[in-house]
Amino acid sequence: MSGKKRIWVAITARPSYSRIRSALESLQRREDVELSILCSGSALLDRYGRVIDLIRADGFRVVDELYTFVEGDDLVNMALTMAATTNHTAAALHRGKPDVVVTIADRYETMGTAVAAAYLGIPLIHVQGGEITGNIDEKVRHAITKMADMHFVSTALAGNRVARMGEAPCSIHVTGCPSVDLARESADVSVVDLQAVLDSLGTGAHVDIEQDFLVVMQHPETDAHGESFSQMATVLDAVNQLAIPAVLFWPNVDAGSDGTSKAIRMFRERGGDDKIRFIKNLEGRQFLALLRQSQCLIGNSSVGIRESAYLGVPVVNIGDRQLGRERCNNVIDVACKTDAIFGAVRAQVNHGRYASSTLYGDGFAGDRIAALVAGETPDTRKRFHDV
Amino acid sequence: MSGKKRIWVAITARPSYSRIRSALESLQRREDVELSILCSGSALLDRYGRVIDLIRADGFRVVDELYTFVEGDDLVNMALTMAATTNHTAAALHRGKPDVVVTIADRYETMGTAVAAAYLGIPLIHVQGGEITGNIDEKVRHAITKMADMHFVSTALAGNRVARMGEAPCSIHVTGCPSVDLARESADVSVVDLQAVLDSLGTGAHVDIEQDFLVVMQHPETDAHGESFSQMATVLDAVNQLAIPAVLFWPNVDAGSDGTSKAIRMFRERGGDDKIRFIKNLEGRQFLALLRQSQCLIGNSSVGIRESAYLGVPVVNIGDRQLGRERCNNVIDVACKTDAIFGAVRAQVNHGRYASSTLYGDGFAGDRIAALVAGETPDTRKRFHDV
Amino acid sequence: MSGKKRIWVAITARPSYSRIRSALESLQRREDVELSILCSGSALLDRYGRVIDLIRADGFRVVDELYTFVEGDDLVNMALTMAATTNHTAAALHRGKPDVVVTIADRYETMGTAVAAAYLGIPLIHVQGGEITGNIDEKVRHAITKMADMHFVSTALAGNRVARMGEAPCSIHVTGCPSVDLARESADVSVVDLQAVLDSLGTGAHVDIEQDFLVVMQHPETDAHGESFSQMATVLDAVNQLAIPAVLFWPNVDAGSDGTSKAIRMFRERGGDDKIRFIKNLEGRQFLALLRQSQCLIGNSSVGIRESAYLGVPVVNIGDRQLGRERCNNVIDVACKTDAIFGAVRAQVNHGRYASSTLYGDGFAGDRIAALVAGETPDTRKRFHDV
Amino acid sequence: MSGKKRIWVAITARPSYSRIRSALESLQRREDVELSILCSGSALLDRYGRVIDLIRADGFRVVDELYTFVEGDDLVNMALTMAATTNHTAAALHRGKPDVVVTIADRYETMGTAVAAAYLGIPLIHVQGGEITGNIDEKVRHAITKMADMHFVSTALAGNRVARMGEAPCSIHVTGCPSVDLARESADVSVVDLQAVLDSLGTGAHVDIEQDFLVVMQHPETDAHGESFSQMATVLDAVNQLAIPAVLFWPNVDAGSDGTSKAIRMFRERGGDDKIRFIKNLEGRQFLALLRQSQCLIGNSSVGIRESAYLGVPVVNIGDRQLGRERCNNVIDVACKTDAIFGAVRAQVNHGRYASSTLYGDGFAGDRIAALVAGETPDTRKRFHDV
Repeated sequence: MSGKKRIWVAITARPSYSRIRSALESLQRREDVELSILCSGSALLDRYGRVIDLIRADGFRVVDELYTFVEGDDLVNMALTMAATTNHTAAALHRGKPDVVVTIADRYETMGTAVAAAYLGIPLIHVQGGEITGNIDEKVRHAITKMADMHFVSTALAGNRVARMGEAPCSIHVTGCPSVDLARESADVSVVDLQAVLDSLGTGAHVDIEQDFLVVMQHPETDAHGESFSQMATVLDAVNQLAIPAVLFWPNVDAGSDGTSKAIRMFRERGGDDKIRFIKNLEGRQFLALLRQSQCLIGNSSVGIRESAYLGVPVVNIGDRQLGRERCNNVIDVACKTDAIFGAVRAQVNHGRYASSTLYGDGFAGDRIAALVAGETPDTRKRFHDV
Repeated sequence: MSGKKRIWVAITARPSYSRIRSALESLQRREDVELSILCSGSALLDRYGRVIDLIRADGFRVVDELYTFVEGDDLVNMALTMAATTNHTAAALHRGKPDVVVTIADRYETMGTAVAAAYLGIPLIHVQGGEITGNIDEKVRHAITKMADMHFVSTALAGNRVARMGEAPCSIHVTGCPSVDLARESADVSVVDLQAVLDSLGTGAHVDIEQDFLVVMQHPETDAHGESFSQMATVLDAVNQLAIPAVLFWPNVDAGSDGTSKAIRMFRERGGDDKIRFIKNLEGRQFLALLRQSQCLIGNSSVGIRESAYLGVPVVNIGDRQLGRERCNNVIDVACKTDAIFGAVRAQVNHGRYASSTLYGDGFAGDRIAALVAGETPDTRKRFHDV
Repeated sequence: MSGKKRIWVAITARPSYSRIRSALESLQRREDVELSILCSGSALLDRYGRVIDLIRADGFRVVDELYTFVEGDDLVNMALTMAATTNHTAAALHRGKPDVVVTIADRYETMGTAVAAAYLGIPLIHVQGGEITGNIDEKVRHAITKMADMHFVSTALAGNRVARMGEAPCSIHVTGCPSVDLARESADVSVVDLQAVLDSLGTGAHVDIEQDFLVVMQHPETDAHGESFSQMATVLDAVNQLAIPAVLFWPNVDAGSDGTSKAIRMFRERGGDDKIRFIKNLEGRQFLALLRQSQCLIGNSSVGIRESAYLGVPVVNIGDRQLGRERCNNVIDVACKTDAIFGAVRAQVNHGRYASSTLYGDGFAGDRIAALVAGETPDTRKRFHDV
Repeated sequence: MSGKKRIWVAITARPSYSRIRSALESLQRREDVELSILCSGSALLDRYGRVIDLIRADGFRVVDELYTFVEGDDLVNMALTMAATTNHTAAALHRGKPDVVVTIADRYETMGTAVAAAYLGIPLIHVQGGEITGNIDEKVRHAITKMADMHFVSTALAGNRVARMGEAPCSIHVTGCPSVDLARESADVSVVDLQAVLDSLGTGAHVDIEQDFLVVMQHPETDAHGESFSQMATVLDAVNQLAIPAVLFWPNVDAGSDGTSKAIRMFRERGGDDKIRFIKNLEGRQFLALLRQSQCLIGNSSVGIRESAYLGVPVVNIGDRQLGRERCNNVIDVACKTDAIFGAVRAQVNHGRYASSTLYGDGFAGDRIAALVAGETPDTRKRFHDV
């Protein structure tokens, strides 16, 4: 009707939104595009910070909100949630018939978006394929690559892998990761404002971000289902012994997240938290400004690999969750043991800031992605590209 | 308990069963295996020949029957059916907790089996990956490869593709296609018995299989959704002009199948069917014996590429459905036009039988597959295998 | 926004639309109402005449089309379809937030509409409660009454039953059945036009509707699941022996419908159909004009009880499906036996037309219903009304 | 096979189990019955005390565990959860084909059990129909009555209502409520043991149960969706002003429960909890022994109406949730206002214990129910019973 290209971006969880936000802002500014966000899964849930409210507050149009999260602390819940996501996303796409669907990264529900779009014959763009990690995400990520018609990857090596998997070279674009755009922009956040935000959000100790402090972000490992509790307990133990103030983020949703949350709750109930501030959720740029300000990031989040490379923040990466991901020299990998974590953090705090790296992008991925999405629509009739 | 390895094989449609049957028989004979069949989708439906009844009659144990087929003649129904398959298969796997799940080929619902097994952390074996075709199956097949932990491929080239996609070489086995086993065994079917079966099943003209006759098997093309009707009408037109007796098989289930069926019904109502016998379903070995006996196979079924290579039957392959599949010299590819089909069938009938090829297997894939399935269980924690 | 009352009417099957159509037309004419139709279940299926296309052709706005029909010839499919209806209707109501939902009669999927509306706190109006029949519909109908906030019943006795069930008297309105409105209007259909329509639709013999002919409409009985085949075969046997031309309608969708259809197909293949015209679907007024013109209606359809009373058409009602429904003297009830059916039809043909009855309405229910729906919105916080 | 009657009892939430437990124990003791529990919904969730673990620990056989709870704090989640319950319960019943299904009370998911059993033609027994309350439960309860084939009611008046709704008198049995059996048996719990359990569970202040204390149990009101937060805050305010030690139970799951939980968490964070012990869950008999020991129950739980009548415990019942339920003189009803609650609790504490009433049962319902369930199986072909 309007002649505008109708783009739907599927957001199923808070981290996906943080990651893609700069591209959304760039798309929103374009005249030739009608941008809509399709929210489902944990994006609608209080327990995971209801990023849908943030998306609306940021001025984006939410075309549909799909409750698809089947609660439970068992592996089967991932499959059931994926099925519900496929089911309701398919119905929404059938109704709305967008020109293109964009899906981000590799969370288990994102497969539901990918399947729905592919089966309905709607061109599917995948952001952040071709990387390597260490759990169910690994299978999901590459399977989505094989469902998708166009690929925006973060690194040259990731692009090579996507090509090896049989995707046509012309469908692969090394855009860099849009999450690095936020890292670049986070330089604009005032430390005073950030301190105020931190003080007003969350619970626990006051942490002065102009002094030394750590950031802790530990997600449950889905392969090591059941060990989430003890892993988080170990991390908390190490942080406690370090006796440096810390800002800790509640975990994202996954099978096992209840174990992680429980470890945090028990730690608090035992009173081990007198130097820690607990945060459920922080706006993306603010989070990265916090990271930029910190002495060290501890945990198993991909932020330690990607945005931290650009920021030059020292990282202690725990366990196998990021195994296989390309990384810069700002990362020390350790097993999930108190002593190992303690020692590595001490070393990183002593080392201080690293040089900034553009391995995962130069901070302008969003505009590149927006231009490509708004450009030529990929053909959905693809075939394995033999070399 | 029993110490036997508990194997679940998912069957969602009649062709999958025909394809895997020799491997199932080999597994059933083993002492170290408890074999169960998980039926869903069109395997339970009257309109598609209820292969579940045949499976039970053949002496296999059906561990669960899952109604997952969401009826409708629109692309969205594939996604909804896939979602229902994931949903109920996940619940069944959660209850039964088999040691291994086997899934076959690339129909759209098979993705539901793959997702359910992968998310539940149950080792997944995929039969018949690495091939190339021309519709949604292409995406589904390779996506399943990326969800699976072990791969049984039909040809060396298919194995190379699976490896290129990042699967570990030790997880890939060139077993040949078990459907070729049935082709080999079909030599044992007596022509007299076969004639009797043919006469008792289906409707329409009597066809004498000791005289010249054609076999017609045309599936709807999902990418060309909506054209199924006119394609089938074209095929029927050509067959009618050829004036050679023919055995025609009703289509399998897919978005668009109603168009194909409608074309057949209209053709019959207009009385164009005086030389054609219409069959809904035929036991696998009998079908292949029929093919072996025929002058030419017409249509777009993969049988024309695979089993027919071994049988040396002349094939006229119509349209793009098998585009990209490796083939032998017994196949003539034509566009879906009456003249082209007419001419190619004439040429094939004149040529007569081709030499047998083992491109898709030597007829002993079943035993190989059974031994591998019963052997070491693959690890579900895989990672992209960089070269 | 517009100030108009936003009414959604759920249509899950062809008969519901025929029944409510006059009320929809009356609502459509009102300035104070924005009318939308929510289609799901068999209303979208080719096999059941895709009434959704008719609804659109009639100028109504379809707000959503929900594929919810889980195919299969087992009782479990009714429950699975009901679940899918609840699931997708809830999502649609959550998105659209209408002011009122209207649901009709007692098919098993209608429970899905009722549950979705009730749980979402949207006022629910039920048309045609309080009647008595003989299968699962009986449970569904009264359960919907207990979920609904307002009741439009066909007869005074039905209204009394709804009141007995604890519904507040002020929420119960004896509007008559809107299907009778069509029966009244069917007098306007020209016999010549009707003959032309009949000749162009369906298959089989030519039937001259200005001569004697019968109408056959036999639905599967869900309680006698499995017997549908033999019942339809018996009916066809009787019709065959009567040797009077007949117009036969294919069955509606239900567990067991495949049995009914199969009996018809076998009857045709045996060539017993030389005096019968087979129709899949006929527009409501035309169908009733056909009935008005016929000598006798044979089968187990509610049309024999309701519209036929108004039309004064002789009816032979077979089996238990309408057991318990109030009826006029134009109905002869018989068991499903060839002789019984044969004799009763003979008697009815000899008797000829009956006097018109207003037991199920005076032919002006649509306007009454439209005025009530457009009027005061019922409160959803109801309580059992103790006398 | 065994000749035993195969009974499945559906448990979707903790309170249902507490309520029916004495009947389960009686059924478990019978030789002629094979008892299985079908668990779904919040019965599997950590946040709601995973009653499934308790059921297994109590020695009952769980035939299936169905994850059906679609998380989210919106009304639509009730409908989605109901749909998932219907879907998976239908699949489980289709597989297991029990002789009888028993469903309890009126939570929104229980409708899923009722629909699944009714559509599959499995005799359905409903426990606790015919009562009157004030929210969605009211619709669900009576709708289940109309789906069920046999009714065990708590009071004579409830039985009269079920009969009025058209159920055959012979299908209605006034058994009393089995929850009262636990109330009777709670006399056997030692106060010393109970004190120990209370001290080891939950968090917050120590409460000495041989001194004066209150019990607080406030559920979210689904009709007043969104007000749950302020209602709980009001209750906590009143309890705080009373300055009597209290044991407070976390809410059960419902749309809005997050609001209730949030009010409790905020109250704790503000430090208002120095006299309160917070409990997530307590075994049924222990809970009732605690109640028996307390000076007053405050909240809107049905326990205040039913078990408390038998126990003679003073109750302050808040708001409309129990509106319409028969009650004894031990209950003072108040609006949800701080002053009103404060005053009523004062009055009740001054009054002290009331005489025991058998309005909701004499404490022997379990044996009565077990004998009836094990006895004659009801016919599923019911019809409205006109008087």
